[in-house]
Amino acid sequence: MKIQNKHYQTIWLKNETPEIIQVIDQRKLPFQFEIFEIKTVQDAFFAIKEMVVRGAPLIGVTAAYGMYLAVLNFGEGDFEKYIFEKADYLKSSRPTAVNLAFAVDEMLEFIIKNKIQRDFKKMLLQKANDLKETEIEFSSKIGDFGLKIIEEIFQRKKQTVNILTHCNAGWLACIDWGTATAPIYKAHLKGIPVHVWVDETRPRNQGARLTAFELGEEGVSHTIIPDNTGGHLMQHGLVDLVIVGSDRTTATGDIANKIGTYLKALAAKDNNIPFYVALPSSTFDFTIENGLTEIPIEQRDPKEVAEIEGWTGSEIKSVRLIPEKSGVANYGFDVTPARLVSGLITERGICKGERESILNLFPEKRK
Amino acid sequence: MKIQNKHYQTIWLKNETPEIIQVIDQRKLPFQFEIFEIKTVQDAFFAIKEMVVRGAPLIGVTAAYGMYLAVLNFGEGDFEKYIFEKADYLKSSRPTAVNLAFAVDEMLEFIIKNKIQRDFKKMLLQKANDLKETEIEFSSKIGDFGLKIIEEIFQRKKQTVNILTHCNAGWLACIDWGTATAPIYKAHLKGIPVHVWVDETRPRNQGARLTAFELGEEGVSHTIIPDNTGGHLMQHGLVDLVIVGSDRTTATGDIANKIGTYLKALAAKDNNIPFYVALPSSTFDFTIENGLTEIPIEQRDPKEVAEIEGWTGSEIKSVRLIPEKSGVANYGFDVTPARLVSGLITERGICKGERESILNLFPEKRK
Repeated sequence: MKIQNKHYQTIWLKNETPEIIQVIDQRKLPFQFEIFEIKTVQDAFFAIKEMVVRGAPLIGVTAAYGMYLAVLNFGEGDFEKYIFEKADYLKSSRPTAVNLAFAVDEMLEFIIKNKIQRDFKKMLLQKANDLKETEIEFSSKIGDFGLKIIEEIFQRKKQTVNILTHCNAGWLACIDWGTATAPIYKAHLKGIPVHVWVDETRPRNQGARLTAFELGEEGVSHTIIPDNTGGHLMQHGLVDLVIVGSDRTTATGDIANKIGTYLKALAAKDNNIPFYVALPSSTFDFTIENGLTEIPIEQRDPKEVAEIEGWTGSEIKSVRLIPEKSGVANYGFDVTPARLVSGLITERGICKGERESILNLFPEKRK
Repeated sequence: MKIQNKHYQTIWLKNETPEIIQVIDQRKLPFQFEIFEIKTVQDAFFAIKEMVVRGAPLIGVTAAYGMYLAVLNFGEGDFEKYIFEKADYLKSSRPTAVNLAFAVDEMLEFIIKNKIQRDFKKMLLQKANDLKETEIEFSSKIGDFGLKIIEEIFQRKKQTVNILTHCNAGWLACIDWGTATAPIYKAHLKGIPVHVWVDETRPRNQGARLTAFELGEEGVSHTIIPDNTGGHLMQHGLVDLVIVGSDRTTATGDIANKIGTYLKALAAKDNNIPFYVALPSSTFDFTIENGLTEIPIEQRDPKEVAEIEGWTGSEIKSVRLIPEKSGVANYGFDVTPARLVSGLITERGICKGERESILNLFPEKRK
């Protein structure tokens, strides 16, 4: 999608040079737009750990290029020992990211299977590029399927379709298009008038910082709201559709997504508003039946709640928000039960949040 | 209640001197504790308008003292014209605050009826003091009635009672005790173990700044959470009771309170957790039947969402949170329908959010 009217993806080869990977430094958005260079596996580790890049698909692809760079920079010694070590090292950059381990293992298997060392680097680069292209294709398909939902609402309403989203399941979390945002971009490009209510998404404000930024750069009409506001908007007919992403999806259609998603799902239900979850099938965990009891919810650094980053006019600065004597709790995700979900938008089509409906789209997962 | 182990109310006469009113400067909490002096009706206007004081009961009492100071400082000319002007002036400091107009009119009527000018200043001061004492008494009674709910839960659970609250319906919004916090303080003082989940309450962060501060200074165990978190806590049995305040209450028990209250009420309902609203009867508007259609919701300054105040370590500073190209919406309140309310805790007792139940407590409101 576009930034400053130029088309970008979140990760690319610098001038098609196969030794340097470039990414957008997402730590500084929306206040500063800077490119970060990844030349070594250590750089890839840093970029993932320090959240220069974030979002499951982007983390996975960054790690894939990291494995490629590891091979490229191999010196001397036991190659197999070396590459297994680098794989473990990359996986440890964000231990809970499922896509990360998946992408690293896929590259590792490819390397071992094809006995790749430096001589086959083109083939390995192609493999990383392929993983990236697959992510783009999945996002694009999610966009096409989700577009139909927006089109239906527009045909009925004949006015701007108001869509609420939470957190950033946008192209900045992916390579292009995004997941929850993909149908929105497809609708916008098709000339359907859309307006997006962007949940600020405390504590890390990915909505106010990233989703608002990418929608604005693409020219999509949007309004940032505090996380408290969505219910009121829904009560007053100002939301036609909710689309969010998912970090983990159970076999029964429960979804774990950014903390606060559940509250919006409740409000959508109470006001009879469709609540859709856009997700690549890589988020499915078919071993899990009950999201509430089986998905562990990560507790994150209390500083994310106690302090906040903003722009002073000349720099990005953190300020403290709470009394010295007070503590905080910082749960990263919550689980929205399938009963509150109107449908799952996947790269293969839309299904209900029900085992049978999911398995109809993914028959290979039937035991 | 206590600050730095000393008992305070939010407003008092300086050294019992009848010419100087002092209030806690709430703009600077929790980062700095400063006293603000009110010597003239202009000072009172400033204190209300600039939110040195906030919260309906405290605004009302501050305005009452403002009317007293207006009489005290009358120079020459047409007294009646003068005092009506000052009344209008004070009311304009925050036009939507119902308590403010009520307190000013009560003082005005008293002044006119008793033909009070400067000679009767003691009698007028007594009137303002009486209004203040009534607010304290109402808060205390709300605390006593609400205490019973907490006691019942504790007797059943035999462990710490976890209470979630939104915004600041604390003693800082009142004179002492608070409304939603009054039952909590009463329970704490009685030795019942309580722990409070404090919603941050974006955009103005009254929870993280004020509720957390007052609970901490009183020694009540508490944890600040992003507004997104309450649903997750309720799903996992970590909340026994929700108590919030109300800015306006319909004849049928709908309540308008700080934006985001409705989302917590939905989550409480979904998880079968009691959701109580603590309110002085002055918030009842018996002319209104349907909160959703009849209560206008104030839209506030976009800056409250686009920027945030925090502590840099040496000063209070605002930083910008959003992209330059993005707009925001800032609705101040939402309406929680009575069907989601377990009960209203008033100074006369607890009733259901139903017309008959309310009128049984306030029979003089029957037509």
